[in-house]
Amino acid sequence: MTEPGATVRIPIVERVLEANDEIAAALRTDFQHRGIFVVDIIGAPGCGKTALLEATLRALGGRRRSAVLVGDLTTRRDADRLARVCDQVVQISTGQGCHLEADQVRDALAKVDLDRVEVLFIENVGNLICPVGFDLGQAAKVGVFSATEGDDKPGKHPYLVQTADLLLLNKVDLLPHLSFDRAAFEADVRLLNREVPLLGVSAVTGEGLEAWLAWLEAGARPQHS
Amino acid sequence: MTEPGATVRIPIVERVLEANDEIAAALRTDFQHRGIFVVDIIGAPGCGKTALLEATLRALGGRRRSAVLVGDLTTRRDADRLARVCDQVVQISTGQGCHLEADQVRDALAKVDLDRVEVLFIENVGNLICPVGFDLGQAAKVGVFSATEGDDKPGKHPYLVQTADLLLLNKVDLLPHLSFDRAAFEADVRLLNREVPLLGVSAVTGEGLEAWLAWLEAGARPQHS
Repeated sequence: MTEPGATVRIPIVERVLEANDEIAAALRTDFQHRGIFVVDIIGAPGCGKTALLEATLRALGGRRRSAVLVGDLTTRRDADRLARVCDQVVQISTGQGCHLEADQVRDALAKVDLDRVEVLFIENVGNLICPVGFDLGQAAKVGVFSATEGDDKPGKHPYLVQTADLLLLNKVDLLPHLSFDRAAFEADVRLLNREVPLLGVSAVTGEGLEAWLAWLEAGARPQHS
Repeated sequence: MTEPGATVRIPIVERVLEANDEIAAALRTDFQHRGIFVVDIIGAPGCGKTALLEATLRALGGRRRSAVLVGDLTTRRDADRLARVCDQVVQISTGQGCHLEADQVRDALAKVDLDRVEVLFIENVGNLICPVGFDLGQAAKVGVFSATEGDDKPGKHPYLVQTADLLLLNKVDLLPHLSFDRAAFEADVRLLNREVPLLGVSAVTGEGLEAWLAWLEAGARPQHS
């Protein structure tokens, strides 16, 4: 029984995270067993995650079999866009939920033929904060900043920068029109994470996409020659 | 006592929201009594909330006495910028907290001389989702989208659009460089909220600022002539 008025917030939060971590660990084991490279993509609303995935899936099409899980509060807009370039796309509607959790990933995977997947992209809900704390069983966490958001964002979102396996600075095609100090941005990243690779990309011009694809290829299982 | 394993998430969330609403109601009564117009500004990271406030405070300087509370996970960057154009600015560091709550507003106000305030701006944590559900005692909620985020964002964030008293489309100076369908954006807003005023603005060129200032003046207490 819960005593009315009792302060039990912290144990509850811990229990939710523990339950999430257990499911995520099981997912990770299964992904590794199947040789699927799983990437959790985290960025603010409008940072260009979907456009980047469209370009990525087009480029990967011939090289790697991919699937995408895409989280949004509501609408199927992103899934509909991605379904044009990938035959296995599942939309996860979170309602008022601000991030994806491992059980949502597990349930969505029931709709995916994992035998036909080498790279699984999880496009998280557009949010720079809440998704960072939830393990989804991914092999790598990719943080996406957009140049249009300003050069001061890494320091303001340290948990993502510290835990990311790769950072992308998207929409670099717009840099000529912005007041954005790329050296300041990079210095901000390096204060928090000396190791993380940082790539400038543009889904519009294709700049940087080859480096991003090479990073994906390095993470995926070696192909049979 | 809390029984281990008991599922008590929903009562806890309800209790947190009820406690928040009680504090917010008390704040609202106090703001109304003092004749202070309080605006909660909600938008994604990098949508330009701070730049817009800088321009707004510069323009309001001679007309209205203002104060700002500014929420961020970490750093004093926004507060430092705003302190150059406003003598009463308080940074609220939320740590890993993804939104402001009413008790944080109440505590921050201890550092503000409210007798010298006619308009109080609350710049919420950069997040389009979580801040929407927390009443801060404001008179008006202002949602900020950036043109750089794409024209599809209102439908993906219906709770903000439905509850906002004003929507701003910021960074309209960049529209010539973007693939952004302004009619589609506005139609998306109108499907969710037929009444809410919608203003295009740019902190860089000043476009739309007079309309935004007029909206603020209409909400603030009439000045003595």
